[in-house]
Order: sequence, then C-alpha cells, then structure tokens
Amino acid sequence: MKHFFMALALLAGITTFAQQQITSPDKNLVLTFALSAKGEPTYELTYKKKPVIKTSKLGIETKDVASMLDGFTIDKAETATFDETWTPVWGEEKSIRNNYNELAVTLSQKAQKGRYIRIRFRVFNDGLGFRYEFPEQPELNYFVIKEERTQFALAGDHKAFWLPGDYDTQEYSTVTSKLSEVRGKMKDAVTPNQSQTPFSPTGLQTPLMMKSQDGLYINIHEAALIDYSCMSLNLDDKNMVLESWLTPDAVGNKGYMQSPFQSPWRTVIVSDKAGDILLSRLTYNLNEPTKFKDTSWIKPVKYVGVWWEMITGKSTWAYNDLTSVKLGETDYSKTKPNGKHAANNEHVKMYIDFAAQHGFDAVLVEGWNEGWEDWFGKSKDFVFDFITPYPDFNVQELHKYAESKGVKIIMHHETSGSVRNYERWMDKAYQFMADNGYNAVKSGYVGDIIPRGEYHYGQWMINHYLYAIEKAAEYKIMVNAHEAVRPTGLARTYPNLIGNEAARGTEYESFGGNNADHTTILPFTRLVGGPMDYTPGIFQTKVNAYNPENNSYIHTTLVKQLALYVTLYSPLQMAADLPETYNKHLDAFQFIKDVAVDWDQTWVLEAEPGDYITMARKAKGKDEYFIGSITDENARTATINFDFLPKGKTFTATIYADGKDADYINNPQSYKITTMKVTSKTKLKQKLATSGGCAISIK
Amino acid sequence: MKHFFMALALLAGITTFAQQQITSPDKNLVLTFALSAKGEPTYELTYKKKPVIKTSKLGIETKDVASMLDGFTIDKAETATFDETWTPVWGEEKSIRNNYNELAVTLSQKAQKGRYIRIRFRVFNDGLGFRYEFPEQPELNYFVIKEERTQFALAGDHKAFWLPGDYDTQEYSTVTSKLSEVRGKMKDAVTPNQSQTPFSPTGLQTPLMMKSQDGLYINIHEAALIDYSCMSLNLDDKNMVLESWLTPDAVGNKGYMQSPFQSPWRTVIVSDKAGDILLSRLTYNLNEPTKFKDTSWIKPVKYVGVWWEMITGKSTWAYNDLTSVKLGETDYSKTKPNGKHAANNEHVKMYIDFAAQHGFDAVLVEGWNEGWEDWFGKSKDFVFDFITPYPDFNVQELHKYAESKGVKIIMHHETSGSVRNYERWMDKAYQFMADNGYNAVKSGYVGDIIPRGEYHYGQWMINHYLYAIEKAAEYKIMVNAHEAVRPTGLARTYPNLIGNEAARGTEYESFGGNNADHTTILPFTRLVGGPMDYTPGIFQTKVNAYNPENNSYIHTTLVKQLALYVTLYSPLQMAADLPETYNKHLDAFQFIKDVAVDWDQTWVLEAEPGDYITMARKAKGKDEYFIGSITDENARTATINFDFLPKGKTFTATIYADGKDADYINNPQSYKITTMKVTSKTKLKQKLATSGGCAISIK
Repeated sequence: MKHFFMALALLAGITTFAQQQITSPDKNLVLTFALSAKGEPTYELTYKKKPVIKTSKLGIETKDVASMLDGFTIDKAETATFDETWTPVWGEEKSIRNNYNELAVTLSQKAQKGRYIRIRFRVFNDGLGFRYEFPEQPELNYFVIKEERTQFALAGDHKAFWLPGDYDTQEYSTVTSKLSEVRGKMKDAVTPNQSQTPFSPTGLQTPLMMKSQDGLYINIHEAALIDYSCMSLNLDDKNMVLESWLTPDAVGNKGYMQSPFQSPWRTVIVSDKAGDILLSRLTYNLNEPTKFKDTSWIKPVKYVGVWWEMITGKSTWAYNDLTSVKLGETDYSKTKPNGKHAANNEHVKMYIDFAAQHGFDAVLVEGWNEGWEDWFGKSKDFVFDFITPYPDFNVQELHKYAESKGVKIIMHHETSGSVRNYERWMDKAYQFMADNGYNAVKSGYVGDIIPRGEYHYGQWMINHYLYAIEKAAEYKIMVNAHEAVRPTGLARTYPNLIGNEAARGTEYESFGGNNADHTTILPFTRLVGGPMDYTPGIFQTKVNAYNPENNSYIHTTLVKQLALYVTLYSPLQMAADLPETYNKHLDAFQFIKDVAVDWDQTWVLEAEPGDYITMARKAKGKDEYFIGSITDENARTATINFDFLPKGKTFTATIYADGKDADYINNPQSYKITTMKVTSKTKLKQKLATSGGCAISIK
Repeated sequence: MKHFFMALALLAGITTFAQQQITSPDKNLVLTFALSAKGEPTYELTYKKKPVIKTSKLGIETKDVASMLDGFTIDKAETATFDETWTPVWGEEKSIRNNYNELAVTLSQKAQKGRYIRIRFRVFNDGLGFRYEFPEQPELNYFVIKEERTQFALAGDHKAFWLPGDYDTQEYSTVTSKLSEVRGKMKDAVTPNQSQTPFSPTGLQTPLMMKSQDGLYINIHEAALIDYSCMSLNLDDKNMVLESWLTPDAVGNKGYMQSPFQSPWRTVIVSDKAGDILLSRLTYNLNEPTKFKDTSWIKPVKYVGVWWEMITGKSTWAYNDLTSVKLGETDYSKTKPNGKHAANNEHVKMYIDFAAQHGFDAVLVEGWNEGWEDWFGKSKDFVFDFITPYPDFNVQELHKYAESKGVKIIMHHETSGSVRNYERWMDKAYQFMADNGYNAVKSGYVGDIIPRGEYHYGQWMINHYLYAIEKAAEYKIMVNAHEAVRPTGLARTYPNLIGNEAARGTEYESFGGNNADHTTILPFTRLVGGPMDYTPGIFQTKVNAYNPENNSYIHTTLVKQLALYVTLYSPLQMAADLPETYNKHLDAFQFIKDVAVDWDQTWVLEAEPGDYITMARKAKGKDEYFIGSITDENARTATINFDFLPKGKTFTATIYADGKDADYINNPQSYKITTMKVTSKTKLKQKLATSGGCAISIK
C-alpha cells in the first residue's frame, strides 16, 4: 500500500511532504502548503474545487547571504482563526469584517545552520494573502534581495486586463487580451510617458485582473507595501506562470532588509461573481489597524479646482514665459506675466465663490508657486520650494477669503520627482500649510526621480512616500499623492492618505483620450488597492472648446461622467470641469452636488470587467442612496434592481440618463432628467448610450 | 613679412589666433590664451620664462547639448586688475592680500547659433586660477556634463606626491615618484578602505604637488567647489598631460548644470621656493567673501576627546555587543552593556575635568548615541537619529557639568554615509545641539554613500556637504566634516567650516601606520585647500600599550607630535592622546597647552616636500611665537633662523627637542626641554631624530 501511494506521489510530479492545508471560513477556498522534494516551499489554491493557483514555488533570491529558495524543512506549522469587525475612518462601508483562517509555517535550512524564515497564509472568504517573515535571529540580520521568487502558476490562458510592467509609471491604457497575447501586444501597449521604464516583454503590473474560461474572477496584488520594493509580475507565457519581479535601485539591488522584518502580503482575490472583486476588502484587512489616536481632522472632500484649464492648455501653470528660472534669484515681480496664468487672486476667488455657492468643501489650486516655467524635463534639483507664491497669488488674502466662505484651499506640491529637494522643504512646506489654513495637499512626482537612477517604485521611493504621509499626519494634513506607487491598503494604517492617482486618469482624456471601457476596468484593477483621484465630472467633452489646438475629447457621455461618482469610489472627489461649463448645465450638475463621498454600504448590482458596472451605495449617516451605471463602447440596457433599498419605504429617485440619441463621440451632452417613486421592489431597465451611463440619486 | 610670421606660426605647431596674454602683478607668471586652428580654447603658463603648463586645451564635453570643445571664436577679451586685503575670521595670517590680473574671454560657437561661454583667468604672484562660466542666454539653459576636458600639459616627468584617484576616499598613503612611475605603482598604492572607487590606472587626486627637474614647485587643485562634481586628474603618461576627470553620479553623468553658472576654479600654484606653496592663499582668494553678518560665534578650538581609546581598540563606540539594532525598537536599557563603552558619564566627566584643568576649550565625545552596534558595513538606512543617547550618557547632566567648568562638549554626527537619513534628522539634530550647549559638530561619512550608487565626491554629495554647513550656520554651529570632500577654500565664504579630514589622519597610525614622511607632505598637498583635523599629540606611540592586540605604532617621535601643532595648521586642534598619558608627560604637554590655534603671521623657515618643514607663527593678538620643525625618516639638523622676530626685543624660548638618542621606532619618547634667550639675530642648529621634530614656544 505504501508503495502504491509513493508511486502516486511520484506520478503527481512534484513530490510533496508534510502537506499543510487550511480553508476559508466558508470552506470555498482551500490553501495547501508543501515542500517539494528539494525542500522548496510551494502553495496552491482552489476555489470551489476549481484550480486558481496551481502548485507554485515561493522563495527569496539573495545577493549577499545564502538564498532562501530550497533545502527547507518545516519546523512548525501553526494555525489560527481571526474574526473581528472594524470601522474605517472613511470608506465604501461603515464597517468591515476581517475574518480569516491562518497558517504560519516556520521553515529552516540546515545548510544555513538552522536559519529560519516564516511564511504566513491567511485565507478569507474572498481570497488569499501570504507573506514572508524574517524573524530576528543570529543567523539572519542584514541581507540584500536580488529577486523575490514568488510564483503564481495559473490554471489556464486567462483573459487578462493588464498594464505593461514598468518601474516608473502606471499611466498606460489597460490592454484586454489573453495572457498568451501579452508578448505580441506589448510594444503597442508601451505608449510614451514622461517617466517610464518597462522591463520585460511579458512584464505586468498589479493589481492584475483576470477571468478564467471556467468563469473565475482572479485578482493578484499586494497589501501593506512598506519599506520594500514594489512588486510587478513577469509572465512565463509558455507555462502560464507569473513570477514576482521587484523594482531595482540605482545599482540593481531589489531590497535592503534587516530582521526582524516581513515582506508585503501577496494577495489573490477570487470569486465566481465579478462584483465580489469590487466588494473585497481583503487588501485593507491585511493592513495594520491605525495607531492614530485622533482622526477627527480626516474628512472626505468634494472639490473643484484650478486645474483642468491648464490640462487642456487653455491656461498655464507658469506665470511667465521664461525658459529657465532660479528660485531665490529670479525676481518674478520684474518679469512679464504671460497673461494665461490661471492661479491668480481674482480667478481663484471666482472658484471659491463657485465652491461656496454649490456646497463644495475645497478648491485645488495648481500653479500657485514659483518655479513652473522650467519645472519639467530638466532633471532640475532645486525646482520648487513649496512656500513662495507667484506675484499674483496672495496666500494670506486667499486664505481669509476662502475661510470667510467656509471653503478650504487644497495645497499643491509638485515635486517634479526631485525628492531630496522635497524632503528638505517638507517641514517648512507643511508648516506653511498649517499657518495658512490648508489641511490637504495634492502631491506629484512627474518625471524621472532624483536621486538619478532610482525609480518611482523602488524601495527608496516607497520609503519616501510613507515618510511624506507620516510627517503630514504630524501636521494633521491629508495627502493625495499623484505619480506615486499604487496603493496597497495602507490607508487603513494611515487614514490621512485619502488619495492616489497611480493610473491613467481624466487628464489623459485631454492627452489623446482614454478607451471607452477604461472606467469599466479600473475598479477591477487599480482600485483594488485603494481609492483613485480620477477627477471626473467633465461636461464639455470636446477639449477644443477650451483650446482650439487640442482636439482630444472625453470618451464618455456627460451622464457617464455623473455615474463615475458612484462607480469609481474615492473619499476625495473632484468636479473637474470649469465653473462656466457647469453653469450651463446646473440641472445635471445637481447630481454631483448631491452625491455623497462617504458611505455606509455598497452593493454591486451587475458588473463585468471591461464591459459594464452598476453599483448602488448608501450615504453615510443619511437615508440617501446613489446608483451609478456605466457601459463601454457598446450601448446597453442596464438592469437596475432596487432591492438593496430598505423594505416598506418609498423613495424619490432622480434619474440622470443619456438622451435617446446620445453618443459619446457625436452627441455626448444629450441627457434627460426624470424623477420617479421607487421602493425595494422596483426594477428599472435603463438604456445607456455608447460609453454612456446613468446616475440616480435617491432620497 | 606677413608670410614669414605665418610660417613661423605654422612651425609652432598649434596655429594660434588672437593670442591674449596677462601676467602676474610681479610679472613672473605669464598666462597666454589662444584658440587653436580648430577653435579649441587653449592656455599656457610660464614662470620666470620657464614652462609650467605647456599649451593645453580647455572645454566641456556635454551629454545632451552640443559640446563646448571647439569651433569657438573670441567675441570679447576683457582685462582687469584687483588688489585688496581682507581679514579672515581665523587663519594663518591676520590679513590676506588678494592681488591679481584678470583676463575674461567670451567665446562663441557659430555652429550653436552663437551660444557663448566665458573663461576667466586670474594670475596672482603665487599662481593661476581659471574657470568656465555659462552666462544666462536663450541658447544655453540646462545641460548635462559628460566630462570636463581641462588639460594641464606638464613640461616634464616631474617628481610627484600623489594619491590614487578615487571617487570615495582620500585616505591612501601619499606615493612619491616620478609621474612616469604612477602606472606601475598604482596597484600597491590602492590599499584597502571601507569605501573606495579607484577609476583609472593613472588617476590622481588633487591637490597634486609636483617638483620639476628645474626646481619649480607646482601644485594643481581647485577652488570654490560648489554644486559641481569634484575634479580628479587622469594622467596621459605618454605625453605627460593631466586631464580633468570628474566624479560621476549613479547613472554615469558628471554634472547637471543650469545657466547662469560657473565651474569651480582650476588652480596652479607655482614657485621656485617650496615655502611659497605653503604660504599661498590663492585658494581662499578665489572664493567669495563671506556674507555672514555675525561671525562672533566662530572660534578656533583646542580640544581633547573620547576617541583615541576607541580607535586603538581599548574601548568601544558601542554600548553593547548586539550585532543588529533598530532605533526606536531596541530597548537599550534592557540590553547588557559590554563594559567597554567609553562615552559614559563618569569617563566623560574625567575628560571634562582634564580639559578644564589644562585650559582646553572642548571635549569631543564619540559613541554617545544609540546605533553604534551595527553602524558600519550594512548599508543601513536608518542608522542613527543623532538625538538619542545611550543609557549611560546623560546629555543634560554632562552639559551642565561641562558648562560649570567652562568647557564645551563637541557633538559627533557619524552618518555612516546614509545621507538622506542625516538630512531628515538634521534640523532636529542641530536644534538638539543648540538646546544642550553644543556649538560644534564633528560629522563623518564612513562607508559607501546611501543613496546607493552615489559617490562621496559626486555633485550630489558636494551639494549635501554645503547644505549641512549652511544649515549649521543658521544654528550658529561650527562644522568639522570627516570623510567629506577635500576642502577648496570654501571656509572663506563659510567660516563655520572649521575643519575637514579628507586625508589619512592620525587614526591610520593605529590602523597600521603612516609613513614617516607623511606629515612633511600633507601641507603641500591636502592642506592647500584648507585646514585638516589631523588630531596629533600622541605621546604613547606604541598602540599595544593600550590594546595588546594592536601592534601599530605612531611613526614619529613624541616631539614631532608637538611640532605638528605648528606645521599642520588647523583652527581646530586636538590633543588626541589619553589624559592618563599626558599626565605622565606634563612637561612636554605644556607645549600643546601653550601653542596657539589662531595666528597673526606665518613664516616658512625651510621646507622641502617629503623631507622637512620648519615653520614659525605669531599667535593672534599676542606677543607669542611658535616654531615647529619636522623631518622624515632621515635624521637631520634643522637650521632655525629667528629673524622673523621683531628686531630689538629679547624673548624666552622653550625648546622641546628629541633626545640625543631618540628614534621614532625604538626610542620615540626620548625628549629634552631647555630654555634660552633669543632675538631676531639668533640662529639655531637643531638636531632632529629620525621622523623627529622640534617645537619651540617663544614668549
């Protein structure tokens, strides 16, 4: 009998010893850990008995100490269960349940005098998370990572929604294709960007969304990226195996570690229902609870801003037309203003008035400070000082004016990637904010990083982004970081991180356009790690109405822009268009004014990545509900089932819908607004135009 | 006639057009500038009609714009004269004369639409300085330097006192050889160092000291190194041409420039008298006057310190024997002290008592702060915080104690090369100093630089060193920076930079030893750019008296150590040995107590680089004079002529001399002290032992 089973094991290919297994609380997910015959750690994951991750290897390849790849034995295997509910400071739900079964295996390598590591697995109902831990011990102190060797062996040539792997940007358009097609499509996918470093013909970013032929939705990402290099994935397209590919530093090393320490969690979210991906809070659940004692200063923000007019080219960030300036030496008061500088006192006051009139919390102002004339593309070290305004921007005067209207101004810290410079000024810059009534900052990292040789997603920069967030918290400042690393749920620990960009946003509609299906994908990819400051709300979809030389156009109908406030969750929501345009469509604008930015509950009514999303949400602490429905380039009829509403009550729904002949290219501004009474029994069949949408506010 | 001269010009080799010429005020030096037939800028220098620099090319090779190497025409040639006397805050003289003739040539390249640069030459009686200037203009804004192409074509195979060119260290022993021998001697010259990056088999550092066969002393260096990469030299040993070789950054670029800007000055100090090299103040004269309004807080310092006992291995910097610590996480109060931690309250108080008893200004304390257990060799980012003391070092208590005795404690900021970390803590660290009575800091940059890939002498770090000095001035703090770039006269502009190491100092006597002629060379090389914190004064020359496992010994007699206080100028002078040893030789120690650290006037009585130096100095504001005389491994009789003394006055001279049978290896501590009356007519023939000296205090 023994021989029979051994033969079976040999037939199985990888001989496994001492298998360890745990399941999700509902038992749908089964995680198996085992060592191969060579003592390599491996794991596999099934969902409702279907393979999600086939037997995959784990390990770390080191540069200066012996690698942690094989020759392991299992010292200990400990299991645990966890079930608690916690309350986020802001979010898509009022409370979040954190329920998992855990397996922690302690492995040692005899060849390294018993040096040991730990791999911890947590299986939730919505997926798996696992990480490497390096406990403090005499045999393991400092080591340098050459590459992490975490595999995700996929069960098939899945459909994937992917971005080219890159050390510096996530602003590519998502490509939808089979994994086997990645290699052929990579060249066209790598479109030009101001800072980009693609690294492999089959390199992919995370979050990576996939759909198997047997209907499983699978998302791979990471959680709690702290003091470690950002993980991309490299696809072995012969065997359909993804492997971790970390971001190197200037000299090619991929991480500097000192025990005790741990890697971020590698996450696999899986379900047979697409909506479960959107409703998974696994990434947050794997992050540490916040230690902030007081979070009263952290509040979701609805804002307008002096921004879109510069993005479209109608106005400038810069004050004058010099091609080269030196801060502290160039006397701006003696230079000739270019007449197109948007961030001037009068114009900003107009925005403040508009914000106050329509109940917005804040006005973002970009281009307020000296240095924009040569801010980009020069590898300029001392590019901004973050505290010196242009001659036509009076900080104190505008602060008082905004305060008198009950509106805040959002600070802007564009760093140009010059990070030593930003850190040198950071305390002064944050104090300047505190002294002048600012409580939120949008930061940016446009362009190649200085120190030169570092990448946006290397350990060095990961460390910096968190340094900026932690220091901001000392000053009670909220941070919205653009061009920084994509989020990995850190906002649970640092709830003042209220936004990131880290993907292709609305600005790209002005730089040539986004695909019509772009926002039907983003919640399945980018938003899995945290909210995105997508800045929707463009009503004038033809950019040449603002700048005759720019023929880009927003690839959606006007109504789809409204729906995005529901389908693209963010605690920080911008009405990005110009007040003069909103003033022409105040009826449609009403939705943006009404929509909440913080929620008690969220439902996915229907969703298919790349095709359509219909979501409903209940405003936090109010008896108000909002529905958003969007489609891709195909017109469709959305089925909107109001059964999420509390039973036995009647509500008034205001429905913002595409006009009958609306079309995102030829007739984007065609819309109609109707009201109707609804209850939990209401079912609505709603027509959406090509790249159209529907937005409903329910009170 | 015209044809005749043209023929002559052709015969001359390089056809020169529109020659420009200026001389030193005394006309001994003649600087000629001309363009070659290809429009390359060239210069040459003669001294008393002897060639110093033969026709040599100038230019900048750029990476991203057209290079500035050839195709030039001369737009303008402007001359000027300057003659003023200025007063340094501290120095070897009370006042310094700055007298030169200047030639500024403006050159443009037609192929670059008239883009122009300027080369400015200043000829002093003691040498030449020249630099490149990049005026602000539409055709020249930002550019990246690939290499500077400044040549120094030498007139012969000079004797040279050289260090291997390196991007990270100057701590090599000086090699004395002909230039033609550099290549063969390079391998042995590159001795191990904790951070080193030699770059060429014929690479050399500056200051570079040379002596021609026709008796000219020639020194090449740079002045005013600000926001530029440090220059080394690469020797073409076929043609005896040196060319500038800048320090690259992590990606191989050698400088990021924005006009208007200028390079540092390239300097050639020349004389037929060796002493003139030591008395040249050309480097300072080429730096900008200070803008500091108040310099009353900057004072020369004589100090002792808790340091040599750690260097010898008798004690430790570290508090305990852990191999890995994490600041803020490791609870030091719960660890077991190793019993050898020198920077403890009781021991420091002993040093404070000693300093007070003997009239020293300050006590340096190294190893006072958390982090020394794993501070080195781990590429550790967050290695020190500069504000958290060990459990046995009470900052406030020791501050009060020192203050009550009229003594200061000198702060120590070892950065371990982790520079982002140092900058993050710098304001807090300086404020901590101000709060606790510290007014001077010794900083250190031991180990490879973090950000990894940068070098100690690249533009990135040059910028950092000055940032630290400027910020220190805001807090009225004096800086003594070790392992930083060698000075280039910046202390004229920033007089709070009172010291650097930037060469092989006394500590190397404990790491195997310095050559017997080492300190007869240093004033001709390293000290040309500024003072060195050499930390002399070791009386117990056998290190195994302190640490039986360390058989190194100081390669000088005791008396030579006294003489160094005169021959190695520094406004910051340490009596580096242990109090217990000084207490055994209080008679000899008296010289160190008496010797001044700031001077009205300096004379070189006799000197030959690598062989001997005898100097005299007058103490600032006092009728006191001090003489120091040193020799190399050869015993000699020094001729000490007291004619520098004011005529008609009699002084009492206390003469500290090597004993009759003193010998730096076998009998280093043999000395005798005598007194005699001296006048300006006195001539003394003084015997110096092997690597011996003589020190005389005159009152």
